[in-house]
Amino acid sequence: MPIDLSYDADVEDLVTKTSRFIKEYVLPIEERFGGDIEAAGGDEIRREMNAKAKAEGIFAPHAPVEFGGLGLNMSDRVPVFEAAGYSTFGPVALHIGAPDEGNVHMLAHIASEEQRHAYLAPLAAGDVRSAFAMSEPAPGAGSDPNALATTATKVDGGWKINGEKRFITGADGAGFFIIMARTAGSPGDRGGATMFLAPADREGISVGRHIHTTDRSMVGGHCEVRFTDVFVPDADVLGEVDEGYRYAQVRLGPARMTHVMRWMGSAVRCQDVAVDYVSLREGFGGTLADLGMIQQMIADNEIDLAAARALLVKACAELDRGGHASNETSIAKTFAAEAFTRIADRSIQMCGGTGVSDDLPLARLHNELRPFRVYDGPSEVHRWAIARRTIGRARKAAAAAEAAK
Amino acid sequence: MPIDLSYDADVEDLVTKTSRFIKEYVLPIEERFGGDIEAAGGDEIRREMNAKAKAEGIFAPHAPVEFGGLGLNMSDRVPVFEAAGYSTFGPVALHIGAPDEGNVHMLAHIASEEQRHAYLAPLAAGDVRSAFAMSEPAPGAGSDPNALATTATKVDGGWKINGEKRFITGADGAGFFIIMARTAGSPGDRGGATMFLAPADREGISVGRHIHTTDRSMVGGHCEVRFTDVFVPDADVLGEVDEGYRYAQVRLGPARMTHVMRWMGSAVRCQDVAVDYVSLREGFGGTLADLGMIQQMIADNEIDLAAARALLVKACAELDRGGHASNETSIAKTFAAEAFTRIADRSIQMCGGTGVSDDLPLARLHNELRPFRVYDGPSEVHRWAIARRTIGRARKAAAAAEAAK
Amino acid sequence: MPIDLSYDADVEDLVTKTSRFIKEYVLPIEERFGGDIEAAGGDEIRREMNAKAKAEGIFAPHAPVEFGGLGLNMSDRVPVFEAAGYSTFGPVALHIGAPDEGNVHMLAHIASEEQRHAYLAPLAAGDVRSAFAMSEPAPGAGSDPNALATTATKVDGGWKINGEKRFITGADGAGFFIIMARTAGSPGDRGGATMFLAPADREGISVGRHIHTTDRSMVGGHCEVRFTDVFVPDADVLGEVDEGYRYAQVRLGPARMTHVMRWMGSAVRCQDVAVDYVSLREGFGGTLADLGMIQQMIADNEIDLAAARALLVKACAELDRGGHASNETSIAKTFAAEAFTRIADRSIQMCGGTGVSDDLPLARLHNELRPFRVYDGPSEVHRWAIARRTIGRARKAAAAAEAAK
Amino acid sequence: MPIDLSYDADVEDLVTKTSRFIKEYVLPIEERFGGDIEAAGGDEIRREMNAKAKAEGIFAPHAPVEFGGLGLNMSDRVPVFEAAGYSTFGPVALHIGAPDEGNVHMLAHIASEEQRHAYLAPLAAGDVRSAFAMSEPAPGAGSDPNALATTATKVDGGWKINGEKRFITGADGAGFFIIMARTAGSPGDRGGATMFLAPADREGISVGRHIHTTDRSMVGGHCEVRFTDVFVPDADVLGEVDEGYRYAQVRLGPARMTHVMRWMGSAVRCQDVAVDYVSLREGFGGTLADLGMIQQMIADNEIDLAAARALLVKACAELDRGGHASNETSIAKTFAAEAFTRIADRSIQMCGGTGVSDDLPLARLHNELRPFRVYDGPSEVHRWAIARRTIGRARKAAAAAEAAK
Repeated sequence: MPIDLSYDADVEDLVTKTSRFIKEYVLPIEERFGGDIEAAGGDEIRREMNAKAKAEGIFAPHAPVEFGGLGLNMSDRVPVFEAAGYSTFGPVALHIGAPDEGNVHMLAHIASEEQRHAYLAPLAAGDVRSAFAMSEPAPGAGSDPNALATTATKVDGGWKINGEKRFITGADGAGFFIIMARTAGSPGDRGGATMFLAPADREGISVGRHIHTTDRSMVGGHCEVRFTDVFVPDADVLGEVDEGYRYAQVRLGPARMTHVMRWMGSAVRCQDVAVDYVSLREGFGGTLADLGMIQQMIADNEIDLAAARALLVKACAELDRGGHASNETSIAKTFAAEAFTRIADRSIQMCGGTGVSDDLPLARLHNELRPFRVYDGPSEVHRWAIARRTIGRARKAAAAAEAAK
Repeated sequence: MPIDLSYDADVEDLVTKTSRFIKEYVLPIEERFGGDIEAAGGDEIRREMNAKAKAEGIFAPHAPVEFGGLGLNMSDRVPVFEAAGYSTFGPVALHIGAPDEGNVHMLAHIASEEQRHAYLAPLAAGDVRSAFAMSEPAPGAGSDPNALATTATKVDGGWKINGEKRFITGADGAGFFIIMARTAGSPGDRGGATMFLAPADREGISVGRHIHTTDRSMVGGHCEVRFTDVFVPDADVLGEVDEGYRYAQVRLGPARMTHVMRWMGSAVRCQDVAVDYVSLREGFGGTLADLGMIQQMIADNEIDLAAARALLVKACAELDRGGHASNETSIAKTFAAEAFTRIADRSIQMCGGTGVSDDLPLARLHNELRPFRVYDGPSEVHRWAIARRTIGRARKAAAAAEAAK
Repeated sequence: MPIDLSYDADVEDLVTKTSRFIKEYVLPIEERFGGDIEAAGGDEIRREMNAKAKAEGIFAPHAPVEFGGLGLNMSDRVPVFEAAGYSTFGPVALHIGAPDEGNVHMLAHIASEEQRHAYLAPLAAGDVRSAFAMSEPAPGAGSDPNALATTATKVDGGWKINGEKRFITGADGAGFFIIMARTAGSPGDRGGATMFLAPADREGISVGRHIHTTDRSMVGGHCEVRFTDVFVPDADVLGEVDEGYRYAQVRLGPARMTHVMRWMGSAVRCQDVAVDYVSLREGFGGTLADLGMIQQMIADNEIDLAAARALLVKACAELDRGGHASNETSIAKTFAAEAFTRIADRSIQMCGGTGVSDDLPLARLHNELRPFRVYDGPSEVHRWAIARRTIGRARKAAAAAEAAK
Repeated sequence: MPIDLSYDADVEDLVTKTSRFIKEYVLPIEERFGGDIEAAGGDEIRREMNAKAKAEGIFAPHAPVEFGGLGLNMSDRVPVFEAAGYSTFGPVALHIGAPDEGNVHMLAHIASEEQRHAYLAPLAAGDVRSAFAMSEPAPGAGSDPNALATTATKVDGGWKINGEKRFITGADGAGFFIIMARTAGSPGDRGGATMFLAPADREGISVGRHIHTTDRSMVGGHCEVRFTDVFVPDADVLGEVDEGYRYAQVRLGPARMTHVMRWMGSAVRCQDVAVDYVSLREGFGGTLADLGMIQQMIADNEIDLAAARALLVKACAELDRGGHASNETSIAKTFAAEAFTRIADRSIQMCGGTGVSDDLPLARLHNELRPFRVYDGPSEVHRWAIARRTIGRARKAAAAAEAAK
């Protein structure tokens, strides 16, 4: 049987609707505010766009059907999320942006019935936003998760959490936090982490300054957060104690891939903008699109987009089969993140002086895409993991061959 | 429905058998002769390996079942051909090397009943080899097919062919030729080409010198061929007159992809050899595999392999759906050909002085892989085609948007 | 005699003084205003910094001694301008930023005695700024200077200039303009251009909107400018009529190289910031600086810096010998511009999440450096010119060899 | 004073003579034997070419004048050695190939009067060849020199050497060896190495198999060598005991740079061959040289050549000033070695199918250049050293700043 990479008609239909919604409704808002979601109104514009998306029947396509979503599997999210990502405001509009999208995904898999009611339902509906509090200031958990320093100490009826977090996306204005804290061992030890749920107004949670980065499309910023004797009742432990990293895996692979999907949309837009420009711009006795060096950049963008998409499809098929797909998602994420900045960079270059100006959205799309080579694990950490797995396989095979002699 | 990228059990089984056959039987032959198929005996070793492959039930997996093959579609060829390509002699052993494999594919689609009997049957069985005579010395047909200069003139009962060909793979010792000649127009004009079948011993066919290249694994070399008043009866016109390029499309896309599949096998082998080397080689207080810069090369190889494979799967799915997949195959071919030399190059680098020596097969695998960036259309020609299609789409969309106003 | 690449003691001394001035005085101002010169006060802060630089004896080191400068040749400018460029405000502080620096250079070479008095003297002293009005909106002069569309028509006692300019750096607030206009032929024809001098308050000159780009360090922005029946007396023709492009060559090569020098300073700073960061930041059982992939980025930055500097030294030596050095400056500019964004990009990557934030200056330094691959001729136009010269030499040599037979 | 990068007239004259000698006399020999020096006659053709070079007055330009050379400093060697390297047989013809050239250089600096007479004189004259026996099979000295395992034990009147060496260039047929052996400490310890001189026919020296690599231009191959109780009298200790690595530094930097010079010549030749080809080859309605993507490759080759040469000039100026120039030579070597394979690779690509054939010398020049990224320290080891120096400087500066507070 040949491999079938086509999508069902209802998915194709959803893509068409999403694409139209983005181009006709969301993109003009984004353009008007130069891609700065806070300047556009933050949570207010989010709610406005969400309402519109609900009316169009395209809201929260990844959320479970019982919570008002469309229940898309990972494979089917690919074209839909890409269409949404064509505008940097698109993911917020459809409620499929980080970190909410990944949190919905994880809660749908792990949360207890009560937690589904208390946290997942309002989140899936877009009534509240959420934050995933894992990263810490140096020398705590960052690229190296074992460095986790925030602690949760057992107290009567629950836990007391203390520690500092950093780069917590969406923290400012979030309705609740998912907090990763150490319940066993010391910083540097493997394992011993647990996830906790806590409403944002719980005593002891304080959201600090925004860390301003080159991306401007995420509501609630990237913040510093401090937890001081934050009490979490036992009922709000997410999953089981000491199993935080195992549960985080449920979130990790899919969240990496939806990042790729969304940013793919922006990369496609860069190429569209640049190709339109060079197709019309005259120079050197024709249009710029007639020049070999320009054609090379156009083709390299196409190749990069196709390869990123093909790797994404592969990783999502693996996730849909039920695997963690750690290697497939690492590969797809690393390639895509690097491909996207290459694409943005070439697109800028094709448009010359106009490319580096804000007469075109390219320079700011580059700034929007650039952090992806760092967020969700820098390329170097993924390469390290990919290499270690390869070496491990080779050593195992060598040992097996030796044993067979 | 999630996308399913898994293979049926019988295909998996075929891959396993092929892989074992290659590693246990073919690879030792290749190693013994330093990868030089002529040194290993040329057609003689080919027949020997073919017989063995037939005995294993893995011979000509792509050929129609009625002609003794396994009738694999393009998607299923991917893992099988890759397994065969692990040895540079593997494709010859399974009779899936260029140009025979592509010629079988094309004849199975286009040939008349008589032609199937006279040409396809013995070719599919490996009784004879074949050659595809299209490329010409400058300024004839090369990267630019419209430059076709070889002519076929209508004579009583058939055609008289005159012209010079160059770089005709497998010509020396081929049983028959498929000849592309101009039946209308002049060099530089589009179209007007026709394909003809002719036994190699037909009067007027003369095979000249071998053009020695860095690859050593194709039986019959890359030759110069001259056609002097070669008579071809009407019955041996392949397809219809003046439609040669249209028919060539049938061969083109699939042949590009099977090239990728085979060479992928050699790229995987480079990585295997290098990873085994650095996993064992001590230095700098550990093994080389512990060093970050080595790990980066290992990971980059994995990423390149995964991306090439994913693009290949995509293009083959498109071909299996019945399209020409010109763009998908151009993208997959261009990316893969460049990825494979990168992989070979990194593998050499990881192994240092041993890597550039013939104590390891890496340097010669690099030389085997390098021409693929030129064969079957240089990367530059593919990029030009990819870019033109992209620009064409953009202009069409702009015109449609204009018209809709 | 071995080649001597060392600098005289007085130049070394000037470098030391400049470096101290930049780090102690200029950098804090730049940091305080996030590198935005307009936010820092524009011309006001420029004058303040200029006064301070004068007091330090390091002001306008390239200007002729008779006009208060230090009269540095191109070779000696290299380390001084690099030291100044360490802060993006440094060139403005020393009055060696674009376009003033290049205008001083050109006027010193071409201007008549009267023009030196009227225009060069106040410019060299920093009493006024200047603008070089060459680029035009499409389809006028841009990468292709022959497209020049602005016209100067002979009238009694002078010329009347009409046309639109675009991307005119420093136009807003400039004291005078150097205007390139066509005095013969039509757009597309080679030659026929003349340069004119005109005070900014001359009737018919209107400065339009700023084109906002990713760089923020040039006073007066990049503006649209319109000339409507602007009268220029014969005495203010700069050089000879119809020889504008020949004179522009005098400015072109040196201005390209001083661009490289200044931006080199910012690239060095990126590397400094990143190396300091990874030397201190702990992770993975040591500091980040202990990791091979980080070390690779550090080394690649060093290699890029060294190569850019070496090419710069070569081109400046050629300019100091009196040649146009078109090829040497094209090569140095193209390599350096691309190297600098690579350096900024790697520096960001080394610093992870902090690298893409404004806790470090790296992301904005990238945005400051990125346009250099476009400004002063995009890399593609320089590559085209470099290739054409190479091909021309080969053809000439082939013809000479043929003739010698 | 502007920097002067021009060469004295006598050096320019030597370059002209060398260039003519190479193109008229040496290149035809190389081409006749496909670049294989052994096939061309090995030491026999070497002597023949040496005699011719002596007659032309261009033999051994680097050797001390008292030993019949021209006594060129490092700066002046640059253009001369590059001219010689235009043919892969050129360095042998002028007696400036590895390892003899570096050995002459080192002996001229370190050897005692007796050693100069016994070893340097015949070597400089080309009466004998020499070998530098440092590298060892794993886990001995390779990229990591501290792993040195060959031992020299003090005996009456001299030393007894035992150990295995590997990859000893020119060993087969060498007149004498310079042997690096451990006189103190154990493998892994820093220091404790001593250099010894020994005639090749000394008892206990046995030259083993040639390690066949992709390069074919060095007489005497790259061999395995075994030392069994080889006696070396005290008078043949080169320099002082335990100071072997310090003396090796004298050889190291200059030898790296002459490698770059020679291989630069071959890189220039690749570009010449390719540019000639595309200037004449017709296609796509013009010549290949008219196509943008071809022009990009031509320009990139020019840029790479210019940057490699500029870094080389810089490092040689530093060496001529008397420094070790470890960092400058590491940078120049790493950049150049990588640039040269890029150049060869692009040159092949420009020439398409002919490029991968032996109708042009490009594929074999690539194979000749490729090992340079490994020989004389792999790029990764140089990058590691470059990075460590950078990090060291940063830490030292930080400590100084801290101390100053």
